[in-house]
Amino acid sequence: MDQVNRVDHFRQISHAQAAYARAIDSGELESWPDFFVEDCVYRITTADNYKAGYEGSLVYCFSRGMLADRVTALRLANIYEGQSYRHILGQPSILAETADEVQSETPFMVARIMRDGTTDLFATGRYLDRYKVDGATPKLAERVVVCDSSRVDTLLALPL
Amino acid sequence: MDQVNRVDHFRQISHAQAAYARAIDSGELESWPDFFVEDCVYRITTADNYKAGYEGSLVYCFSRGMLADRVTALRLANIYEGQSYRHILGQPSILAETADEVQSETPFMVARIMRDGTTDLFATGRYLDRYKVDGATPKLAERVVVCDSSRVDTLLALPL
Amino acid sequence: MDQVNRVDHFRQISHAQAAYARAIDSGELESWPDFFVEDCVYRITTADNYKAGYEGSLVYCFSRGMLADRVTALRLANIYEGQSYRHILGQPSILAETADEVQSETPFMVARIMRDGTTDLFATGRYLDRYKVDGATPKLAERVVVCDSSRVDTLLALPL
Repeated sequence: MDQVNRVDHFRQISHAQAAYARAIDSGELESWPDFFVEDCVYRITTADNYKAGYEGSLVYCFSRGMLADRVTALRLANIYEGQSYRHILGQPSILAETADEVQSETPFMVARIMRDGTTDLFATGRYLDRYKVDGATPKLAERVVVCDSSRVDTLLALPL
Repeated sequence: MDQVNRVDHFRQISHAQAAYARAIDSGELESWPDFFVEDCVYRITTADNYKAGYEGSLVYCFSRGMLADRVTALRLANIYEGQSYRHILGQPSILAETADEVQSETPFMVARIMRDGTTDLFATGRYLDRYKVDGATPKLAERVVVCDSSRVDTLLALPL
Repeated sequence: MDQVNRVDHFRQISHAQAAYARAIDSGELESWPDFFVEDCVYRITTADNYKAGYEGSLVYCFSRGMLADRVTALRLANIYEGQSYRHILGQPSILAETADEVQSETPFMVARIMRDGTTDLFATGRYLDRYKVDGATPKLAERVVVCDSSRVDTLLALPL
């Protein structure tokens, strides 16, 4: 039974990760906050800062409302029109799990495609996630995006 | 039972995708048409054109015979000798399914490796697929390759 | 029963691959040899050399002790401080399997992140693996890393 639950969690988290990436890469930014619980944390930091235990983050949101505000700002700035992302995710590693919560780590590579067609490797890193799994669909209680590079574009636009 | 079938389809499609990428990246082009049903559609387009609903495609084949012809042309032109690809695929999202057909979307990143060893990020995008799953192995009834960039190499050589 | 075992092997290998990449990308080099059996082979070669059947390898280790020595050398040279990798792996293809051994092929893309933040696509290729699966965790009896490019950085530092 424990084994069965573990398997289910793994598959649930995998599907949730794929859906998250697909929403952003398809430009459906308005659905991005729906991947989080109301009382969530979303932040982007670098591997160096994370390792050193610094709290400083490139982006720091601590509620679903803040995520929605961020989407509104992106739409107003027309940033979505200027570029798109393509996320390719590795397989999640389940680090800890209880009946209603799963902690996982998932590596990512993100390519950025500019309006003129230029494509570059924009960011690599890993998601450190805490998922609530007590409902039909897992929701993020916390996502820390740890970028490998110390030089992440300060114009960070679309969500990672 | 429905849940079980859904799980099976997901795994079947995942395996079919991996086999497809492996055939191309190993240079086994002659086996590429075998991933399709006889009466198939294969086309490559851009995200902009796809969104706008344009029918225009960079590559358009509408039978397995046309795919085989394309492989012959590539062999005659010795294009295979000049470069190779490496596909890395994300997890498929199952968009719709019946007992004998599955529609899915799968993100991809393709690196191109030139004869002199130069490696670049060649293309990113997603496969929009319609798979026939009534046989032992799923076969593609339709694959629309939607490239994120509007600037895809017009010398598009190997299949994506 | 055979079908069930096949499924288990696939999942076991997938998890082992993810754990391997995670150890290297997190800088936990000391745990790298633990992914192998004592009497193992680890080598890095190019697609051209592999195809031609050449034995010559860029890196060739034939015991777990040699892998540990390599890690020690990397630590002494402080190479780990200068760069990190990010592996993104495709899904493994199971090529052959018995009750205690599985042969698989897994495609990879590796980005390299330098100390100054520069990120590039460092290597692409595939792992040709022979896994011992008779214990709780699959262990590598053999890993041949076949790089697509003939021009792999001769300063090859971290393990692929």
